[in-house]
Amino acid sequence: MKTNRITFAIIGILAGLLVAVIFFADFTGDGDEAQDTRSKAEKVYIPYGEHDDYYMLASGGHSGQLFVYGIPSMRKIRTVPIFTPDPATGYGFDKESKEMLGGYTWGDFHHPAISETDGEYDGEFLFANDVGNNRVAAVDLSTFTTVDIMHLGDNMGGPHAGVFVTENTEYIALPTRFSRPIGGEYESLDKFEEKYRGIVSMATFDRDKKEFDTAFQISLPPWSYDLSDAGKGMSGDWIVMTTYNTEFATTNLEINASQNDRDYIVMINWKRLEEAVANGQYEEVNGEKMVDPRDHKDAIFAVPVAKSPHGVDVTPDGTRFIAAGKLAPMMTVFSFEKAFEAIENENFTDEEHGIPILPYDEVMEREVDPPGALGPLHTQFDDRGNAYNTMFISSEVVKWDIETGEVIDRQPSYFAPGHASATEGDTKSPTGEWLVALNKMAKENFLSVGPSHPESMDLYDISGEKMEHVMAAPVDPEPHYAQMIKADKLNPIRYYEKDENRENSVWNQEDARVERNGNEVDVYGVAFRSRFVLDAQSERPDVIEVNEGDTVRIHLTNIDIDQDATHGFAINDYDLNFEVQPGETSTLEFVADKAKTYPLYCSNFCSALHQEMGGYLLVKPK
Amino acid sequence: MKTNRITFAIIGILAGLLVAVIFFADFTGDGDEAQDTRSKAEKVYIPYGEHDDYYMLASGGHSGQLFVYGIPSMRKIRTVPIFTPDPATGYGFDKESKEMLGGYTWGDFHHPAISETDGEYDGEFLFANDVGNNRVAAVDLSTFTTVDIMHLGDNMGGPHAGVFVTENTEYIALPTRFSRPIGGEYESLDKFEEKYRGIVSMATFDRDKKEFDTAFQISLPPWSYDLSDAGKGMSGDWIVMTTYNTEFATTNLEINASQNDRDYIVMINWKRLEEAVANGQYEEVNGEKMVDPRDHKDAIFAVPVAKSPHGVDVTPDGTRFIAAGKLAPMMTVFSFEKAFEAIENENFTDEEHGIPILPYDEVMEREVDPPGALGPLHTQFDDRGNAYNTMFISSEVVKWDIETGEVIDRQPSYFAPGHASATEGDTKSPTGEWLVALNKMAKENFLSVGPSHPESMDLYDISGEKMEHVMAAPVDPEPHYAQMIKADKLNPIRYYEKDENRENSVWNQEDARVERNGNEVDVYGVAFRSRFVLDAQSERPDVIEVNEGDTVRIHLTNIDIDQDATHGFAINDYDLNFEVQPGETSTLEFVADKAKTYPLYCSNFCSALHQEMGGYLLVKPK
Repeated sequence: MKTNRITFAIIGILAGLLVAVIFFADFTGDGDEAQDTRSKAEKVYIPYGEHDDYYMLASGGHSGQLFVYGIPSMRKIRTVPIFTPDPATGYGFDKESKEMLGGYTWGDFHHPAISETDGEYDGEFLFANDVGNNRVAAVDLSTFTTVDIMHLGDNMGGPHAGVFVTENTEYIALPTRFSRPIGGEYESLDKFEEKYRGIVSMATFDRDKKEFDTAFQISLPPWSYDLSDAGKGMSGDWIVMTTYNTEFATTNLEINASQNDRDYIVMINWKRLEEAVANGQYEEVNGEKMVDPRDHKDAIFAVPVAKSPHGVDVTPDGTRFIAAGKLAPMMTVFSFEKAFEAIENENFTDEEHGIPILPYDEVMEREVDPPGALGPLHTQFDDRGNAYNTMFISSEVVKWDIETGEVIDRQPSYFAPGHASATEGDTKSPTGEWLVALNKMAKENFLSVGPSHPESMDLYDISGEKMEHVMAAPVDPEPHYAQMIKADKLNPIRYYEKDENRENSVWNQEDARVERNGNEVDVYGVAFRSRFVLDAQSERPDVIEVNEGDTVRIHLTNIDIDQDATHGFAINDYDLNFEVQPGETSTLEFVADKAKTYPLYCSNFCSALHQEMGGYLLVKPK
Repeated sequence: MKTNRITFAIIGILAGLLVAVIFFADFTGDGDEAQDTRSKAEKVYIPYGEHDDYYMLASGGHSGQLFVYGIPSMRKIRTVPIFTPDPATGYGFDKESKEMLGGYTWGDFHHPAISETDGEYDGEFLFANDVGNNRVAAVDLSTFTTVDIMHLGDNMGGPHAGVFVTENTEYIALPTRFSRPIGGEYESLDKFEEKYRGIVSMATFDRDKKEFDTAFQISLPPWSYDLSDAGKGMSGDWIVMTTYNTEFATTNLEINASQNDRDYIVMINWKRLEEAVANGQYEEVNGEKMVDPRDHKDAIFAVPVAKSPHGVDVTPDGTRFIAAGKLAPMMTVFSFEKAFEAIENENFTDEEHGIPILPYDEVMEREVDPPGALGPLHTQFDDRGNAYNTMFISSEVVKWDIETGEVIDRQPSYFAPGHASATEGDTKSPTGEWLVALNKMAKENFLSVGPSHPESMDLYDISGEKMEHVMAAPVDPEPHYAQMIKADKLNPIRYYEKDENRENSVWNQEDARVERNGNEVDVYGVAFRSRFVLDAQSERPDVIEVNEGDTVRIHLTNIDIDQDATHGFAINDYDLNFEVQPGETSTLEFVADKAKTYPLYCSNFCSALHQEMGGYLLVKPK
């Protein structure tokens, strides 16, 4: 009987569990698919009160601006204006930023590079190249504002292959994509090979002064330079660059620049060139210190690579560089050690324009050619010895083992990925958590916005053996590359500290004043919630009266020293608007050439009485 | 024995269920909180291959642009340039859009209004006001491009209180925020009440020609007009507007414009004014047909309202208008029926500047004053008779019953919400699904980007009895208002149709040509993957040679008639860049005043051989 009781109890327990399992299976929804969606949704959802783990700092392409995203949420937090005026922040409208822009109205920002210390992102500055107008810019990551822009001179033809920084930000390398005659002068394309040159600008950045300088330029054959990377550790003295159009084609490049089976990766020892320049071994050309490979045969080399490569990326340990083939459907792993050996032994197969050519077979370590994978463009890395390649044509990301070349996983992307960005991916210590593919086509991924679609970005969780595609997100045109940095490496300030000695600043409303000197009018004013005080002596302290033709400078200090307390200053119908961030002083300069009555107002919503924050500019006729 | 077996079986089943329940409870995690997070995450996650349900079309404030979001994902899909040049799309660079911008470099876009038919968003056009530079613009929602911008003339001082459209888009009403002397002329502020005026521009839009016109302007007392709305159904002939500064203050408005206990809501019967203007009852002032309340006592009225109101919103059924108090912590419900009755009976308490004043107590239906709710700014609606009010100071959204005034729910917002936008919220048929609060402060919601934070938007699920705060999302400065329209109401085109008769267009590469006429050079070229053909007769069809001083017009047709196949055209170091969308023809005009060699290239990544899509502009010295 006892056995019977136990038997029935066991049957009962099993029946109970069965009911529970059925109920449970039902409760959890439609099986794997629902579970899968839920888990992806949770991965990217940041509940109110929590923050993203990484900043993604993405180039904005021909918008000229920097896009700041949170990862993994993929939410855009901020547009930081760099090369293009931006009324949302007053950038390019106040005197200082207007002068920094120098009359240019756009830029074409392709590749961001965070400043590095010992091969790690240090989070202090971000450098940006301008392919459109030959410039380089620095963004201070403590304020997320552009602090310097340098024009690279007329020798340059679009510094596309930059910016990449050396391990301790000694140099910011900026190689041209387009070849131009030195100085940019008019020259027939019949003399292309003879007269046109490809230039690398080696810029330096003074972190204290927040200023660029050009240390020297390198004059190379008129090939197109596409991308570059700096060495790390054992290869720290080197930079590597991909080339295309080694055919010297001057028209129909899609055909004529794709003739050779091999183009080159150029290897430059910047340390040796630095020493040579210090020893006076350069020519002065248009105000720049120019070095030529024909005079520096110990510093500039080339190694053949499968045709028209796009990216070249140095592995985190600095031992190898990997070229992504673009027109040849493979990744090629090169060994720095083998390259150094060939150079040491003067094992050269040829010379081009004074550049010794290293033997491909002896420097190449491995060709990785996943079947059907087409259009590899760029390589990123994790912390476990794996490489990730974007495939533009076959629209996918391929994960493979650097040591063995074994392909571990392939996941689709939506669609046509250019670069990819891995968390801390260009450092000595990638974290292997997330990868974002920066796609060139969105097709019908998102709600349609007419004939010109947004671009698209794919987020992958790369923490496991297999990659997981978590989300596709739309983005304005057009991120070409991004870097992702751990959020705790950045520590932006909350406001500008009060500084009584700051030029043009006023800290008490009683000190607000107007100074007139002939037809020059300087207004020293303050902004605070919810008032402008521009002239404390006036019965209407928020009104300025000037004479037609006066040059007017409004120096405005925001004395609300409190995070997020930004004020704008707009003059209605005058096409003028600028901004003062908390604790900041800025100047707006204009000639009062239209005699009328102009309302002025705070253009950045600041407080409950923001609508009441205004006054008038009265321009009295002559 | 049988009883025994059954007993043990039942005990077994219960034990089994207990085990299962314990297991199940453990499996589902930390109880309510985890469950809650999961469900919010799922609500906003749009899996790859699916689309959002609504477009949110948000003003971009002093960025001057339109921001397009998907709802509920809260992902930004596109920035549509309206008032500010935008190199990302070439807007303001090509000849046509440059001329449309007329030299202005920014705008201050506050309130979007989708065109309406019979009181419903019809999804054809979106209208935008420019408070900064006194303009109104139209965006064609079939292409998401700006098709017309009209300057409202110097009578205006910032059309802040617009744009709101009448039920069938007969008029786009644009009332000024700032009063100015008529014509904007210089005038002392001592004569404010006498010489300054508040103006309402009544604009019309021809949908076929895609052109604005100003039908007439209304000259009102120099109060500040803050927001407006159009009537619906029984109130369809009316517009209502809030006022502040009925004190006629000319300085320190935060104090001096907050003295009166009551300001006004102005009620305008646009139909009666339209008739009057048709009958010649207007004065011609600076080229505008101007009407004055003193001459139209049957058309313009005012009703007192609690001090310094911000929003005024007409209920979906058109029977009431609700003012949000801003400085008085309550919402006031007014009855159109009662207002019409008072007007009919000439039941006026007073007259101000020719405007009959209606009796507050007889037009007001209800004051709704939730305890502790401070700073009501704006009212939105659902499909179940409820109103939703943003509270700027107490940072919350309050849901209440329009019929009873009963407060149903209150949910916090993060932080300081200005307007809110409900799905189809300004129509006769709100859908009651989602509400977005457009906040003015983000504080520490998101990763810090320095002293100036992003703005923040809160998404609420309003489909239930209680509102659910689902997510806070960052946004660039600065959406003031947004409208949310069902996605299936829009049907954007995928490309521009081939049109052989289109001016300046070329559809075959063989027809690409350069025409010279003195120092005028017209280039008729085509762009396609991956080549420019600018002169089919040249041995280098992608190269243009001109003489220093030539006026050059590059007419470019994108013959890739395929969605998403946009090409850019940039001239390196020349500060020039424009775009041709699929099937589009655009013109870039410039004077070749710098004799140099300039690379040109496609600036919008288009294909695997995009890097090869380029050529040269050679400017030969004089």
